[in-house]
Amino acid sequence: MADAFVVHQHLETRAPRSAVLIGGGYIGMEMADAFAHRGLAVTVVEHAASVLKTVDPGFGTLVSEELQRHGIRVETNVRVERIDIQDTRLHVTESNLFHASADLVLVGVGVEPNSELARAVGIEVGERGAIRVTRMMETNLPDIYAAGDCVETWHRVLNRATYLPLGSTAHKQGRIAGENAVGGAREFAGTSGTQVVKVFDLVIARTGLRDDEAVRAGFDPFTVESATWDHKVYYPEAREVRIRITGDRKTGRLLGAQMLGHVHSEIAKRIDIFATALFHNIRVEELNDLDLSYTPPLSSPWDPVQMSCQTWVKALQ
Amino acid sequence: MADAFVVHQHLETRAPRSAVLIGGGYIGMEMADAFAHRGLAVTVVEHAASVLKTVDPGFGTLVSEELQRHGIRVETNVRVERIDIQDTRLHVTESNLFHASADLVLVGVGVEPNSELARAVGIEVGERGAIRVTRMMETNLPDIYAAGDCVETWHRVLNRATYLPLGSTAHKQGRIAGENAVGGAREFAGTSGTQVVKVFDLVIARTGLRDDEAVRAGFDPFTVESATWDHKVYYPEAREVRIRITGDRKTGRLLGAQMLGHVHSEIAKRIDIFATALFHNIRVEELNDLDLSYTPPLSSPWDPVQMSCQTWVKALQ
Repeated sequence: MADAFVVHQHLETRAPRSAVLIGGGYIGMEMADAFAHRGLAVTVVEHAASVLKTVDPGFGTLVSEELQRHGIRVETNVRVERIDIQDTRLHVTESNLFHASADLVLVGVGVEPNSELARAVGIEVGERGAIRVTRMMETNLPDIYAAGDCVETWHRVLNRATYLPLGSTAHKQGRIAGENAVGGAREFAGTSGTQVVKVFDLVIARTGLRDDEAVRAGFDPFTVESATWDHKVYYPEAREVRIRITGDRKTGRLLGAQMLGHVHSEIAKRIDIFATALFHNIRVEELNDLDLSYTPPLSSPWDPVQMSCQTWVKALQ
Repeated sequence: MADAFVVHQHLETRAPRSAVLIGGGYIGMEMADAFAHRGLAVTVVEHAASVLKTVDPGFGTLVSEELQRHGIRVETNVRVERIDIQDTRLHVTESNLFHASADLVLVGVGVEPNSELARAVGIEVGERGAIRVTRMMETNLPDIYAAGDCVETWHRVLNRATYLPLGSTAHKQGRIAGENAVGGAREFAGTSGTQVVKVFDLVIARTGLRDDEAVRAGFDPFTVESATWDHKVYYPEAREVRIRITGDRKTGRLLGAQMLGHVHSEIAKRIDIFATALFHNIRVEELNDLDLSYTPPLSSPWDPVQMSCQTWVKALQ
């Protein structure tokens, strides 16, 4: 929060005209969008082969294209080694392989739990140094509760604790910690890993596990990507929605979904249909039984969510 | 379908400049929107006290206001008695109480199942004359299956057959009838009564039961309306979403939800979060456990769906 105010003040008082963003994650994407809207020339530098590593590389490439459509330079596979200053200009380099210069450099390469205070009083930490808590949000010290970006989070699909700091999760955990600290007995139901980000006119969302995450968790996953219109194509402004479904080969169980489409294609709340179904341990095929809303300007008799499930079932056969 | 083509041809060849729509249901609303976009002067005439009787009257009033904002005359509590023709002008009247004239009159006052053929061969009919079918979509005559707008539909929340002809339901039933007719054994999971319509910039959606329907079905319902922003208000273009939750007082079970908001507030797919939760017989309070997607341009850490549930739970206490 403090960093955001510093950056904002810098923009207001120093009026930089260009920026290099190191890191193509959520912060990098949101800042690229915001800086471009303010008229800055923006370069995004990403260490991996594609931006937005929270989704599969194909989706990352589509996000890169959206950035480029808005005049942003995107450089992947770059391992930044130095940031040098010359007069007021900053130079970002990887030996002879990469160079970019700008008035402002913003580094957004991940978060770490701030668990120092807890460790100092003998509270156990786990995943990536995050405070270890029970499903009731209690630490190993009796009557001491913790919640939010500093704690481990129970993952419903992985069936184990993970580190996944998100605002939606922090709000849930905070209420539970508060209730239990005053004598309640509520359990945190766990995260399903649901996430969404808007980048210009594109929305990218996910819930559950990607294929590679499912393999590591011991599932036998099968992932199928499909594209459908967000509503009946005879009604104006139909746009393509891309959905990647990951399900378990043996049980047919839904393990996760990724979705990418236009900001007016209800991507965020369509991923929530998957998230709600996933919460109830549904099989991919069973999503066809859901009575989802249909009107030609907004969907099809089978919603894109269901059409993507039908494609998955057919592909598995 | 045939009627739609006739109306369309009439619009193309006769170029009417005004229309009276009798009936303020889905057809009336969609035609009011379409005719106004074509430049016709439109009057909507509704028999009940508010348009769009599928949702509670307060929502119907907001829909009337949306129609009026787009220059449409809305007249409720009108029982049309006569349509007279003078030259090429049509006059719609209720004795001395109501008069409107136009080049075109469209009547959309409900649908009836076309079950004549079935009855003629001895197939039983039920609710409102619709063909009686099992959950496998089989009629009382062996090996004769039926599906779509001509059949009774199993309602998951009412736990009985009802007449609710909708495209989304027809598609599901058609596949099941087809599969079973060739030797399959699939059961129709039933409707939850999910519906949505777009009227100009407004989207109105519902799933499950309204309060009055829940009373008739033997529940002890409690209904609470709340209004929240569709996303964080500090991010531009936040708009109000109105949600009415109906739950059972005794069990806390979710029975239904109604939602109204802007076409860009993801109303259709937010009602589907309720529809998916309702499919799994969730309690209103449990919706807070769902891991729904959050990013400031598209939602809040507690989605409007969840905030409305929190309001319901507090009001019940």
